[in-house]
Amino acid sequence: MQIDIVTLFPETFSGVFDFSIIKRAREKGIVEINLVNLRGFATDKYKSVDDRPYGGGAGMVMRVDIIDKAIASVKGKKAKVILLDAGGKKFDQKKAIDLSRDEHLIIICGHYEGIDHRVHERLADEVISIGDYVLSGGEIPAAVIVDAVVRLLPGALGNEASLLEESHNDGEAEYAQYTRPEEYKGWKVPEVLLSGDHAKIKRFRSPAR
Amino acid sequence: MQIDIVTLFPETFSGVFDFSIIKRAREKGIVEINLVNLRGFATDKYKSVDDRPYGGGAGMVMRVDIIDKAIASVKGKKAKVILLDAGGKKFDQKKAIDLSRDEHLIIICGHYEGIDHRVHERLADEVISIGDYVLSGGEIPAAVIVDAVVRLLPGALGNEASLLEESHNDGEAEYAQYTRPEEYKGWKVPEVLLSGDHAKIKRFRSPAR
Repeated sequence: MQIDIVTLFPETFSGVFDFSIIKRAREKGIVEINLVNLRGFATDKYKSVDDRPYGGGAGMVMRVDIIDKAIASVKGKKAKVILLDAGGKKFDQKKAIDLSRDEHLIIICGHYEGIDHRVHERLADEVISIGDYVLSGGEIPAAVIVDAVVRLLPGALGNEASLLEESHNDGEAEYAQYTRPEEYKGWKVPEVLLSGDHAKIKRFRSPAR
Repeated sequence: MQIDIVTLFPETFSGVFDFSIIKRAREKGIVEINLVNLRGFATDKYKSVDDRPYGGGAGMVMRVDIIDKAIASVKGKKAKVILLDAGGKKFDQKKAIDLSRDEHLIIICGHYEGIDHRVHERLADEVISIGDYVLSGGEIPAAVIVDAVVRLLPGALGNEASLLEESHNDGEAEYAQYTRPEEYKGWKVPEVLLSGDHAKIKRFRSPAR
């Protein structure tokens, strides 16, 4: 899979794709993640990428023409363009699975003050929000989506069993897990887990318990 | 505000707090963000911080004793300990506002394979999930929470007006915004926004429209 992230702040991502599963997936060639710096598509000497909103109001609005040029620089025929915006459709595990079947994602990071609505109307195939909260921009949400999607790509998880057992893929939260030490500050591991009785352990771990 | 992030992967955060509002808030001394490397609290020569789950199962489980020691190293009387976990209470803007009133947050990043349940039961004041999707660990969710909370701290936003006008603080999505160019590829800015008729513009921007 190829993922291009169109952003005003490429430096945000300097560490975020270099840990754990994402790092391994990149090293294995399962995913290629590329940062597209919006500033590089500015056409005036001030490198401006945003401007005052028509009709008045606070803040600056990111320009549709600049974003269009940034997308065009990486867009192939099979690319899906995703705009991250607080007003978008809520991201969930079903959507992560859906996106993991695409060959090429282009993720546009908006900024909190606003983005020209023609980006929603004309350029984005999907508008996605990661949750009901306000963030500075689409950069951290882009990292959320990349993490959720990349770990679903074949071969990305070292231990395939973990993926199957895990929370949310089936809509249920994971069962309570415990490891050494058996007792810490008087806080004990439930006895059933030490019993070796597999039927009892299975019951203990069942969500219906 | 002080924020300590307890993590196995401190390198994840190398760029994520150095952009936009978070960067400015740190430079102004509005927030101090500190990374606590869990490995530093390992007690054996392998620096191990996790172990096999009691009762069997795939993957490794992060140890309660190691996490407790990491928390103790930074915990003051007014600290609120937050565990990021897919099974936690859903994070939203109300919770962001709530947390922005705390003086000290300690955020524990779990890892996808699991964390000893005694961390939930004994160490965490709150268990939070940022959404209904599976991620590799709590690192990116910690960045989400830091971003959502820090931007609410007094003085963090350069332009206070933006904060007031914005989406989600009142539970509503923002209105459609447009900026230059007035026309691009035949895609036009709605005429009402160019009209200078403030009553009409206000109606156009009203969510009830």
